[in-house]
Amino acid sequence: MASSSSSAPWKQLLLNALDANAKLQHSSFFQLATIASNGRPSNRTVVFRGFQEGSNKIQINTDCRTRKIEEIKHYPFGEICWYFTDSWEQFRINGRIDIIDGSNSDPVMLQQREKAWFASSLKSRLQYLGPSPGVSCASEEPFKKYSLDPSSGPVDTFCLLIFDPEQVDYLNLKRHERLMFTSKRNADGFECWMLEKINP
Amino acid sequence: MASSSSSAPWKQLLLNALDANAKLQHSSFFQLATIASNGRPSNRTVVFRGFQEGSNKIQINTDCRTRKIEEIKHYPFGEICWYFTDSWEQFRINGRIDIIDGSNSDPVMLQQREKAWFASSLKSRLQYLGPSPGVSCASEEPFKKYSLDPSSGPVDTFCLLIFDPEQVDYLNLKRHERLMFTSKRNADGFECWMLEKINP
Repeated sequence: MASSSSSAPWKQLLLNALDANAKLQHSSFFQLATIASNGRPSNRTVVFRGFQEGSNKIQINTDCRTRKIEEIKHYPFGEICWYFTDSWEQFRINGRIDIIDGSNSDPVMLQQREKAWFASSLKSRLQYLGPSPGVSCASEEPFKKYSLDPSSGPVDTFCLLIFDPEQVDYLNLKRHERLMFTSKRNADGFECWMLEKINP
Repeated sequence: MASSSSSAPWKQLLLNALDANAKLQHSSFFQLATIASNGRPSNRTVVFRGFQEGSNKIQINTDCRTRKIEEIKHYPFGEICWYFTDSWEQFRINGRIDIIDGSNSDPVMLQQREKAWFASSLKSRLQYLGPSPGVSCASEEPFKKYSLDPSSGPVDTFCLLIFDPEQVDYLNLKRHERLMFTSKRNADGFECWMLEKINP
């Protein structure tokens, strides 16, 4: 079965799962696997920041100083594993990741980064002013209180990741059903999704 | 700070987290990232089946016919990401994975595999008799009802994974604290864990 609509056929399943699990704060958290510079898998929890407007691409905010940025620059592919604890659904989403930082040359991308910055809470934004994540704590360093003007734009450490899905492996444990969605480009260059029912 | 006790210093933190989140069935689920044969990251939810007796190694049951077996045979390293939704703690556990299937030549390992088989529910065991996971559904195939003698040992498709942690990155979001535990062998060949406090 093939589908070539602009909205991918798995997207509605994901929106339904988000809706069915909305009362749980953690339903917007998923695990993003990438490949570390030593070649080993790397895996961490990140927060879903919505779809890029009018597309199937998934947005994630992150700090430019985290190890995942270095990893994605080296190898720009990842797999999201998103398990919904209430509806017993799992989405394994494999795709390519783009990094949008303040040095991006595309004004549309910079605008999206700015939009993502203002869409996050002031508390979240303050984290980007803190000490470098993953670096040894300088315990001598006095406790600093950071402040930020709510109207000021993204700081240099703020980074938007745009995850472009190429394959989605959907598992529904309640219905004992598994679907594999695979993206293909057709002759006209349009994205087209193939759907196959596979054994759970 | 170094510790060389046989029980790793992060293990108690993990046992505490399991205890604090015990009322949630999904607290025993975590995401295991490996590397697919095409070099891309691969990520899925699996179930924690306890520690190997007297060790820090984590047990996972799986079907020999799943893609992860092929992946681990090709590259035996993985990263677990285990997020506890109630206590807001995350464990990122990087390590080496051993596959224990029915062809293993070590009788002690075969015994552990058998123990894992009998420790899982009859319903879980029945899954190993079903059609090959991840393969296209033969919709023509008539619905089969499988049955299994509760006293019979592991079937050929049952596989025990033993995950040996080498590094544990612990994050506590409530206390805004992050600890990095790294395993080293000391001069006597004993495993020794180094602990460093890092920025969240």
